[in-house]
Amino acid sequence: MDPDAVAKAFVDHYYSTFDANRAGLANLYQEGSMLTFEGQKIQGSQSIVAKLTSLPFQQCKHNITTVDCQPSGAGGVLVFVSGTLQLAGEQHALKFSQVALFASFILFCFL
Amino acid sequence: MDPDAVAKAFVDHYYSTFDANRAGLANLYQEGSMLTFEGQKIQGSQSIVAKLTSLPFQQCKHNITTVDCQPSGAGGVLVFVSGTLQLAGEQHALKFSQVALFASFILFCFL
Repeated sequence: MDPDAVAKAFVDHYYSTFDANRAGLANLYQEGSMLTFEGQKIQGSQSIVAKLTSLPFQQCKHNITTVDCQPSGAGGVLVFVSGTLQLAGEQHALKFSQVALFASFILFCFL
Repeated sequence: MDPDAVAKAFVDHYYSTFDANRAGLANLYQEGSMLTFEGQKIQGSQSIVAKLTSLPFQQCKHNITTVDCQPSGAGGVLVFVSGTLQLAGEQHALKFSQVALFASFILFCFL
């Protein structure tokens, strides 16, 4: 297993799900998961998806620029993503960056 | 202990050390530490500091815009930093973002 390739595939899956069926992201979070979104901390799969689906835009398209990953030192994988977010009807894309800390077993399940 | 306040203090310490005495960052890394820098993975305190001190600029000033932190789920703290980097003699500041995954005991040592 090439950790970079797995992380890249996972990131592609995460953002294509975000763009096509945001509620489907629930499968990628657990009850112990935490999302920090612009300073707000949100815990648990259901609350995280409620936050993501309530964002003030519907159609969107993420374009990934960079994916960096490294072992987290506790059996997990740390992934850093940057790119742009194009919203429907908006001329200019927004820049975004996101960090994810995955347990290895989630990545294994994804294979 | 307020984890956000500790993370913020640590970030301030990291970047003020970076700007004033880059070689002093060696104390903030361990042999098992890994730095991923623009896709390049570098392991160990000595190699990491060699990389950071070889960057093609000398005088610089980091200005921190955001610091987000959350527990990593393995007794650690995940910190996401964004801001700008002003290089001496350059008119425009560069945007940067960096992620750090600290073991809790490093933050405790810092207190």
